[in-house]
Amino acid sequence: VAGNRVDGGQTIVADPGRAVGALARMAEIVGPAHAIADSDRQLPYLRELRGLYAGSAALVLRPGSTREVAQILAVAHEAGIGIVPQGGNTGLVGGQTPSPDGRQVVLSLSRLNSVREVDAAGETMIVEAGVTLAAAQAAAERAERLFPLSLPSEGSCQIGGVLATNAGGVGVLAYGNARALTLGLEVVTADGQVWDGLRTLKKDNTGYDLRDLFVGSEGTLGIITAAALKLFPRPAEKVVALAALPDIASVAALFRLAEARGHAGLTAFEFMSRFTLDLVSKHIPNTRLPLREPAPWYVLIELSSAEPGGLAEATMQRLLTEAADNGIVSDAVIAASLAQSQALWRLRETASEAQRPEGGSVKHDVSVPVARIPDFLAAASKAVDAACPGARPVVFGHFGDGNVHYNVTQPVGMDKAAYLALWGPMSEAVHDVVASLGGSISAEHGIGQMKRGELLRFKSPLEIALMRKIKAALDPKGILNPGKVL
Amino acid sequence: VAGNRVDGGQTIVADPGRAVGALARMAEIVGPAHAIADSDRQLPYLRELRGLYAGSAALVLRPGSTREVAQILAVAHEAGIGIVPQGGNTGLVGGQTPSPDGRQVVLSLSRLNSVREVDAAGETMIVEAGVTLAAAQAAAERAERLFPLSLPSEGSCQIGGVLATNAGGVGVLAYGNARALTLGLEVVTADGQVWDGLRTLKKDNTGYDLRDLFVGSEGTLGIITAAALKLFPRPAEKVVALAALPDIASVAALFRLAEARGHAGLTAFEFMSRFTLDLVSKHIPNTRLPLREPAPWYVLIELSSAEPGGLAEATMQRLLTEAADNGIVSDAVIAASLAQSQALWRLRETASEAQRPEGGSVKHDVSVPVARIPDFLAAASKAVDAACPGARPVVFGHFGDGNVHYNVTQPVGMDKAAYLALWGPMSEAVHDVVASLGGSISAEHGIGQMKRGELLRFKSPLEIALMRKIKAALDPKGILNPGKVL
Repeated sequence: VAGNRVDGGQTIVADPGRAVGALARMAEIVGPAHAIADSDRQLPYLRELRGLYAGSAALVLRPGSTREVAQILAVAHEAGIGIVPQGGNTGLVGGQTPSPDGRQVVLSLSRLNSVREVDAAGETMIVEAGVTLAAAQAAAERAERLFPLSLPSEGSCQIGGVLATNAGGVGVLAYGNARALTLGLEVVTADGQVWDGLRTLKKDNTGYDLRDLFVGSEGTLGIITAAALKLFPRPAEKVVALAALPDIASVAALFRLAEARGHAGLTAFEFMSRFTLDLVSKHIPNTRLPLREPAPWYVLIELSSAEPGGLAEATMQRLLTEAADNGIVSDAVIAASLAQSQALWRLRETASEAQRPEGGSVKHDVSVPVARIPDFLAAASKAVDAACPGARPVVFGHFGDGNVHYNVTQPVGMDKAAYLALWGPMSEAVHDVVASLGGSISAEHGIGQMKRGELLRFKSPLEIALMRKIKAALDPKGILNPGKVL
Repeated sequence: VAGNRVDGGQTIVADPGRAVGALARMAEIVGPAHAIADSDRQLPYLRELRGLYAGSAALVLRPGSTREVAQILAVAHEAGIGIVPQGGNTGLVGGQTPSPDGRQVVLSLSRLNSVREVDAAGETMIVEAGVTLAAAQAAAERAERLFPLSLPSEGSCQIGGVLATNAGGVGVLAYGNARALTLGLEVVTADGQVWDGLRTLKKDNTGYDLRDLFVGSEGTLGIITAAALKLFPRPAEKVVALAALPDIASVAALFRLAEARGHAGLTAFEFMSRFTLDLVSKHIPNTRLPLREPAPWYVLIELSSAEPGGLAEATMQRLLTEAADNGIVSDAVIAASLAQSQALWRLRETASEAQRPEGGSVKHDVSVPVARIPDFLAAASKAVDAACPGARPVVFGHFGDGNVHYNVTQPVGMDKAAYLALWGPMSEAVHDVVASLGGSISAEHGIGQMKRGELLRFKSPLEIALMRKIKAALDPKGILNPGKVL
């Protein structure tokens, strides 16, 4: 029997001969076209976009059905082979990347890409794990409904990964994160059984909440193969504006005002520092700031209205006028066309990409109570400057969720590798600030490989122990995404 | 060592002498004033309101702090004594009632009744388990905020029980159930440790979702001692109407229309059959139907608006006029004062109480997809009539949640005990209809003792096995609310 550990170590296969037989059986399950052993063909599954994480795999499998996933897991469980589930390979914390030892098997869910059912009247849909977020949005759209989850990577990221990481994005403020949008799941367990929890009910109090346990567990407790998701009425009108603000206190004031005037119609409130938009203007083709003067802070506001008649636009006009009268907004522009709306959104959505040409970036995805964001920024800036003088914070994020993407770009002219070597101490310093404000070291990206150590530093030993008990109960051999989260 | 089972059996104490010593230590922890051994004084904790469940207890403990709860659990864990947590003792499935063998200890959380913190700006509050729902609502109100959970028993039921059962009520349509309103928890584990999960963050993706595992677990995985809850802006205006409808298809049509016209402002949509309101008028003092003619169905609609100016009332007028024009509403009245609003709500809130004078009632708390409610009612009526000719369904509930309280009152003149003896077969027949429509046998009341058998009938063996693994992982000695849920 394989000697796997569930305490956070790698999967260890005690009997290599047995593993080879198991790999052959797994390849048979999916058929030769979908079992990738060739290292060149494996490459897209072994590295993530930024090159921060890379691994090796005994095999990359592309099953075509839930049944095949279950059969693969049954073999893996018996042989004690670590399985790394993977969706669109867009995760930012290394959760989808296999270990470097070449013993793990990558299980790509991409071929499970059916939209099984869209119930427009009931406002639910059932989609498979490999459906991209954009395809899920489009399926809802075809039924004249809205699936409101939205991320920069929506063209590539897949529903299975979106739910496994409890993804957030720009629609959380009004509609909630992936967890809030999930009604039911289909999950393959560690030993290859299929749990049919694809319920579409609004209320169901029959036993423990397995659904929310699997959501956000990053593939370490079970493999999500399909999900029942909530749909919403499509807003009849949407209006987008970009405002310039003199200081961070004004951003907080504008958020309170936007909530008070926009109510449920406030569907986005994203903030960006001047340096963030400077990088976007500099490095992203066809972007320009549509305001007269540069300002310390910018906010992208989206208001939606359920009925036509210009309510959203009228509310936006009033809101920005009131904010200008109060001195919290120095300039603003309201998009007058769909093209202008998309151009404003593009400023926000390319904020990550715009950092790359500047060299190394130490990234943080943190949250604090909304009212503490100004305190966080002040303290984090000091901490970062102490750890690396000249490092340049690129600040943007989902202000209304208390979620800051605090990405620190290297000092001009510094060696990239030397800068990235400071990731540990810089990140620890920023996380210490977060913890002192009652915040979270991972607001929406998850733990993966990146934050395992930090998780141990900030969670109580009791909470870690409770998580390990659950892991051991549902995956006693530790074959599900070994070395991730715990 | 005590020989407890976690497979659904009672806690068995192998060594009575050891148990006696443990009970004495538990009594010491809370002090003599709060350790109730006298059977008369224990009585309020041993029986529930309707007399459906009664038990016996070795001791009733009323700890005054989380620390005392933890100390009690440490002793209980060591000695293997079953602990039955209890809030306001208003549960409807026997989850709060000890077993009849007199070996279990009832742990009343009533004295943990502090509102620890209300953050009006951040729209969160932290309350202890023993705070009644009404007191929690009042604390929010004092800070000019809304805590939207609302149940007929809100004057007695307590936050700990509300969360342990994931309670629903009349506000779920717009604001969600107890789970959706919970940001964080403080929980005492089976072995007497305190998990501080009192987070007030909107986003936190750091590990497994322990919060949602404890919410709805009915005290079988841990004991909730405090909770961080979400608050909302108070609506500036609310308007309530009662409409009469010719058939159940019209109820469904009115719900779709109310959603389309009311949007996020539709804060309640409750339906009642004619027989339900007949019983209310007959048995509840000072109630009368404020409509000209009786009708087969009635709907109570509440619309809220965030800003003053009469929007909610204007929308209600338009909605009801349009519905009358379409022939789906035959008559309607809009409350013109707070007193009239309360009188309309009273018709709905006393629907359960009004059944008591009619004799025995076999109660079901079920949900189906909203569009299937008419199918459910037709099939359930046939099933009930086959099981007990002349039995009278009292139909009411949260239409917009797909949640029907399908309570079947005994035939006129039948012996009550003889009727209640039919509970099993009648309930099974109704639940079979629910299952055939993809519904839930417990929409909001939970499983407790009442539905343990039915749970096994409808859940897959895999889902039961997953729940048992989690139970065994978090409560290996089976001391937490033994004999409930699983």
